[in-house]
Amino acid sequence: MLSQKVNINRVFHALGDPTRRAIVEKLSIRPLTVTRLAQPLDITLAAVVQHLQVLEKSGLVRTEKAGRVRTCRIEPAGLSVAERWLDDRRATWERRFDRLGDLLTEPDEN
Amino acid sequence: MLSQKVNINRVFHALGDPTRRAIVEKLSIRPLTVTRLAQPLDITLAAVVQHLQVLEKSGLVRTEKAGRVRTCRIEPAGLSVAERWLDDRRATWERRFDRLGDLLTEPDEN
Repeated sequence: MLSQKVNINRVFHALGDPTRRAIVEKLSIRPLTVTRLAQPLDITLAAVVQHLQVLEKSGLVRTEKAGRVRTCRIEPAGLSVAERWLDDRRATWERRFDRLGDLLTEPDEN
Repeated sequence: MLSQKVNINRVFHALGDPTRRAIVEKLSIRPLTVTRLAQPLDITLAAVVQHLQVLEKSGLVRTEKAGRVRTCRIEPAGLSVAERWLDDRRATWERRFDRLGDLLTEPDEN
């Protein structure tokens, strides 16, 4: 499983699942092996692997195999893509209210 | 369609679709009627209504009917929930590197 290009559709889709968000939460703290990821989540190894594949395809997570151990890490570029999109929406939305505020405080020339 | 409680699973799921993101982009700029939303997106009114239902259920969009006209607005609380989750992940991830930086700059006592 090689690191893929970040795909915004897949990033948001991947984060719509609570188990996948729990995986991203754990990997934000530290890199973990697949086995260590599965234990506290109380789900099967096969289920974790499936969720990891979705996360890898989205570009949120990267995994590397050394011998028989696969280690999973957060891929911050994936988070950035989602953050940037949300930041842009908020900036646009807030500008609208700044303009409204300007209009309300402008002296009435009529 | 009344405004619903924000649901983080549904927020991220809703944003995983490019048409729904385009709707949120348009509504960040200004409130729009369903018809005005459908025109530039070049999709049927029925498709827009379906996407709006997903967006309303997630808590990202609010719609109000006055007479025969339904107006759609952004619901900033929906964006906030996603932003906060991403911010927390980034903060955790960056703290890890701050600690690593501290370790590397600490004087070697051996």
